[in-house]
Amino acid sequence: MFLRDYWYVAALTSEIETKPLSRQILGQHVAIFRTESGEMTALADHCPHRGYPLSLGTVVGEHLVCGYHGFTFDCEGHCVAVPGQERVPGRADVRRYVVVQQGAWVWIWMGSGPPDYSKLPSTPWLVDTGNWSSVAGVARIDAPIELLVDNLLDLSHETYLHNGSIGTPEVATTPIEVEVDEVANVVRVYRHMLSVECPPFYSRTTGLVGKIDRWQDIEYFPPGFYLLHARIAPPGQPPDADGTDDHAFHMKILYGLTPSHDGRVYDFWALARDFCVGDAEVDVFLEKMQTSVVQEDVDALNVLHARAQAFPEVAEVSVKIDRGGLAARRVLRNMNQPVVNA
Amino acid sequence: MFLRDYWYVAALTSEIETKPLSRQILGQHVAIFRTESGEMTALADHCPHRGYPLSLGTVVGEHLVCGYHGFTFDCEGHCVAVPGQERVPGRADVRRYVVVQQGAWVWIWMGSGPPDYSKLPSTPWLVDTGNWSSVAGVARIDAPIELLVDNLLDLSHETYLHNGSIGTPEVATTPIEVEVDEVANVVRVYRHMLSVECPPFYSRTTGLVGKIDRWQDIEYFPPGFYLLHARIAPPGQPPDADGTDDHAFHMKILYGLTPSHDGRVYDFWALARDFCVGDAEVDVFLEKMQTSVVQEDVDALNVLHARAQAFPEVAEVSVKIDRGGLAARRVLRNMNQPVVNA
Amino acid sequence: MFLRDYWYVAALTSEIETKPLSRQILGQHVAIFRTESGEMTALADHCPHRGYPLSLGTVVGEHLVCGYHGFTFDCEGHCVAVPGQERVPGRADVRRYVVVQQGAWVWIWMGSGPPDYSKLPSTPWLVDTGNWSSVAGVARIDAPIELLVDNLLDLSHETYLHNGSIGTPEVATTPIEVEVDEVANVVRVYRHMLSVECPPFYSRTTGLVGKIDRWQDIEYFPPGFYLLHARIAPPGQPPDADGTDDHAFHMKILYGLTPSHDGRVYDFWALARDFCVGDAEVDVFLEKMQTSVVQEDVDALNVLHARAQAFPEVAEVSVKIDRGGLAARRVLRNMNQPVVNA
Repeated sequence: MFLRDYWYVAALTSEIETKPLSRQILGQHVAIFRTESGEMTALADHCPHRGYPLSLGTVVGEHLVCGYHGFTFDCEGHCVAVPGQERVPGRADVRRYVVVQQGAWVWIWMGSGPPDYSKLPSTPWLVDTGNWSSVAGVARIDAPIELLVDNLLDLSHETYLHNGSIGTPEVATTPIEVEVDEVANVVRVYRHMLSVECPPFYSRTTGLVGKIDRWQDIEYFPPGFYLLHARIAPPGQPPDADGTDDHAFHMKILYGLTPSHDGRVYDFWALARDFCVGDAEVDVFLEKMQTSVVQEDVDALNVLHARAQAFPEVAEVSVKIDRGGLAARRVLRNMNQPVVNA
Repeated sequence: MFLRDYWYVAALTSEIETKPLSRQILGQHVAIFRTESGEMTALADHCPHRGYPLSLGTVVGEHLVCGYHGFTFDCEGHCVAVPGQERVPGRADVRRYVVVQQGAWVWIWMGSGPPDYSKLPSTPWLVDTGNWSSVAGVARIDAPIELLVDNLLDLSHETYLHNGSIGTPEVATTPIEVEVDEVANVVRVYRHMLSVECPPFYSRTTGLVGKIDRWQDIEYFPPGFYLLHARIAPPGQPPDADGTDDHAFHMKILYGLTPSHDGRVYDFWALARDFCVGDAEVDVFLEKMQTSVVQEDVDALNVLHARAQAFPEVAEVSVKIDRGGLAARRVLRNMNQPVVNA
Repeated sequence: MFLRDYWYVAALTSEIETKPLSRQILGQHVAIFRTESGEMTALADHCPHRGYPLSLGTVVGEHLVCGYHGFTFDCEGHCVAVPGQERVPGRADVRRYVVVQQGAWVWIWMGSGPPDYSKLPSTPWLVDTGNWSSVAGVARIDAPIELLVDNLLDLSHETYLHNGSIGTPEVATTPIEVEVDEVANVVRVYRHMLSVECPPFYSRTTGLVGKIDRWQDIEYFPPGFYLLHARIAPPGQPPDADGTDDHAFHMKILYGLTPSHDGRVYDFWALARDFCVGDAEVDVFLEKMQTSVVQEDVDALNVLHARAQAFPEVAEVSVKIDRGGLAARRVLRNMNQPVVNA
């Protein structure tokens, strides 16, 4: 049901403290915390004694102590002490999950085997703070990951759902190009809007006035990572042949799509920009505006899912703008197929 | 499961604006709105593209534009535009429902065929504002229509549940007469209370002091329309032989019973009176008191239904006051039977 | 499913007024009230007419009148009046439950036959107000009785969950002794802590400073009664050989475990002490602290049960401190077995 052998965004780095965070990922409860020395640790959020959530326990030194009867675990998940006796019983260990911090995001490996670091998405824009500034956040959606994929792969909805922030008429009217890399399982959607209206999201941060060229180049790496390369520039000034693009403003818009349970998904986001780097006011503006945009998506997808649950058999009518979303659905579906003769 | 080939009250006229109203009627989501020219329109509240509720869209001129990706519909439900392409796909139309405004109430035809206007209840008292003043409201009950029918057909409950507003001891003690028109499917219940206490509902509006004659003549037109002819008069002054009844005060108490979904029902009401016509203070008093009375019914029926769901097999003990309700149940049940050799 | 032929705590005495209390016990809705003469009465909370809860009715003299249509019942549950007719129908009576007040608690017999008074727990400390002062309360837990039994039979959790009020390190570390009376179905757990820290719960009420001897002698009488004999004394001063124990402070900590429905349980508690008798300030202190302790249990068990419902097949790891709880589980399970050749 879940695609487990992948990295998912588990938390914002800012969420991880010595007080454990409880998060349900691919159906599994995980307690994520820092020890007193600062080591970031993720353990199964379930005490093997009586099932109490370890996330309700307390970090003492490099250990996590269960809040019900005091079973105590180290950062590897080994049970190192139980109350009322010296001997620690066998089979009292808990699973340890591998987590990796990359800037504002914490990734988790949910596979049953050892982590495959070659699958870990690269997000240099969140780490290279000399050239990029970023803000990040998270929302929970009471809808399955498929509806969020639909949403993100078809940005024509910006014109209607996000009117006033990032939507302009041309997003909906500009044709798209879709590419699918069937080997690497990547879906790419390109929308290059030329000499179009500049939405508040960009006009107030880039200082550009009048018409702009606005590119939206999407890369979706199923199941859990989405990367939108946004390029904003004065009209008629494409990048140089060698790729130099100094007169343009670039924003990397990242989404981590992390299924929680029962058809719910976490919607992690991060915005990294190569302009106004280090400008805290722009941070505040973008974080506030993006939080509002994401909430519009949350509200819409919650409603869609509630309707779909009540009326599961209703058909859809697809049009050209849906090609990106349909391609992504197909890739996701194929990844879920059992591999024959592999 | 639902009786579809009937008119139901869908909304209060005051609820219908250019911002669409979403209402679930007989299980179907309906978006009701006015276009900018003022035309009242009801469409299936479901965009055929991705299922987003059209009620969350925006009226632009004479069209409704979906709030997710901009599919656009005219008042007949025809899809007239989609984003990103010129051609409008076939099969993107939505159902249009016929609605009719009669004073404070908006009726909707829920049948699959064309509307049968001969079945539309007549409510002249809501329209003839020269001779009648009226107030109206709506509540939602988390109980099926059958419990509301039980409630309205047996007004002896006024004595206990609505004590202090419309209930007096004599409502419960006065015997009733019940008539059933098996051909027209109408249930009538008569309760003529002679020389009885006048409840605050009437004493503060008619100015009558001391005892009164109080008639409650119910007509129930299943499934969705209930009409209570209330007559309040000084004792011993029945109407003249020719029907003239100038010394009495008359109130028409109308209920629209509109099943929503999953055993829930909308409880529309309207009170029309031929006294204190145009008196806004009396409007306010009656609206406030009736809202409170309806809420008492809502609370009681919500509790009853919750209990009935937990203990579905509990028997009932019926007495004489129940004859109206039992007759109504039987008529409703018969209307739900498949017609043989029709 | 429920063990019915037992007494359960149904209410606090302070909860019973002429306005009826509704409580669901072993799945059955019960209305408990006092008549105007003060007689405590418990009737099935279900009017046989249309199923309205009698607890929403009104006490008039020695009768309870249904709040919907006025069916009227005496203290034996006999229907004595219905509206609109003289004759009272047969089969309109409701079950009467036998209730017994013992100090702050009201017990109810839930068996189908006549009450077995020999099974009624004895709680003299709640009645002998000359020698004992007591406070009492109730909470509802969204978890089954088994989880509350687990909780109460293993007090090592005090150290972690109730740290700062009644928990100290020695509760978890001190070994226990467990006895099971298989004939009388009583589980006893002894924990005698010698020369240990005195928690605020006792230091602020006994005035003892420094180390104390602290005994916790539990008696669990399944299914519904739990009795903790707490003994607090200066170190090294056990009771005399004849049982005299004047230099110690005693507290009886009583719990009434009353299953409600669908895996929920009422958690009644009472604290009786033989010190500071009649001291209202100590009453307030203990009631406040115990309410907080109980809420910590409620929160923990609610979480545990929610997790257990989502992951019903997870195994447990038991250790020595669990022997009391495991014994209680076994006794409860045996009591639920059908008796063969009895």
